[in-house]
Amino acid sequence: MKNVLLLSLAVVAAVGLLLAAAATSPPALPQYTADNQMLRPENYRDWVFLSAGLGMSYSPQAGGHEMFTNVFVPQWAYQEFQKSGKWPDKSIFVVEERDSQTRGSINKVGHFQTDLMGMGVEVKDKSHFPEEWAYFNFGDGTKSARANPKEGCFNCHAAHAAVEHSFVQFYPTLKPVAKKFSTYNAQRENVDGAK
Amino acid sequence: MKNVLLLSLAVVAAVGLLLAAAATSPPALPQYTADNQMLRPENYRDWVFLSAGLGMSYSPQAGGHEMFTNVFVPQWAYQEFQKSGKWPDKSIFVVEERDSQTRGSINKVGHFQTDLMGMGVEVKDKSHFPEEWAYFNFGDGTKSARANPKEGCFNCHAAHAAVEHSFVQFYPTLKPVAKKFSTYNAQRENVDGAK
Repeated sequence: MKNVLLLSLAVVAAVGLLLAAAATSPPALPQYTADNQMLRPENYRDWVFLSAGLGMSYSPQAGGHEMFTNVFVPQWAYQEFQKSGKWPDKSIFVVEERDSQTRGSINKVGHFQTDLMGMGVEVKDKSHFPEEWAYFNFGDGTKSARANPKEGCFNCHAAHAAVEHSFVQFYPTLKPVAKKFSTYNAQRENVDGAK
Repeated sequence: MKNVLLLSLAVVAAVGLLLAAAATSPPALPQYTADNQMLRPENYRDWVFLSAGLGMSYSPQAGGHEMFTNVFVPQWAYQEFQKSGKWPDKSIFVVEERDSQTRGSINKVGHFQTDLMGMGVEVKDKSHFPEEWAYFNFGDGTKSARANPKEGCFNCHAAHAAVEHSFVQFYPTLKPVAKKFSTYNAQRENVDGAK
């Protein structure tokens, strides 16, 4: 009798583990080399899309060829944001740059997306970065990258993002969530120079 | 002994069901009213993003205010496409229209996305539509919609889409998949009138 019960418990445990493994992929978390370089995120196109822009620039002098930017976060981090209006530790944001084309196939005007041109990554990871947030650039084929100096993305995100270091003012489906949880800084919507 | 075994089996089954339910959402499938109107798809922002366009139009006379279009498909359909270069029966495509804004917060040039303006839906569902593919429009708050007449989207998708009725020529991450499985009609990339 005791053996049957033990066997049953073992079967329950085994079936449970198998089902859990089959039904979920491991959550997407930041990975690093031994010297704290971040590994290029993979499979981010399966993540949740936050928004896209075309030719966005924080400098009025921007010009030249316009590119699309697509922003993705892992499902697990997105679900946490829905529950709290905040980003959990180990959140990853991928900003993908894609070339734009106008005439092609039946499209006559406007712009559609083509080749991958570059990738920026933002992470919130207090165990790896004393200031929690860090920024990386991955060119074509770059497998790992060191965090950018603070003078780049970090300072701008700290000064202008509406939720923590995240530009939720540009993510229309997350804005109402952050407002509901009072984590949204509406001042950051003001156009600079028009304050 | 027999009772213990039966009990064990019941426990195994119950744990299995609970784990499966907790770990996976039900796959997103098209839902209809009794008179074959499609119900508005929900939670499509958790699906896989295929691409975004800005102001895309198939008419050279298009003008006025440009809108973004974001395209989403359910995870399960996307995974099937990765394995075959074809869309499985019951695939759903949501094309979301979002308004665009230029100046806002620290953004000076280019365009970012704002309010939802409308939604088009394409389904592949041979048990509901004799020609497999059907097209719907959902305005703000529309809960169900009847399929559009063939003269609208259907004929254009049939004549111009690169994979079945799907404009894979505008989805840069799916193009190489379809090419690998030889389901891609490269002729459909030609600009009309330049053939």
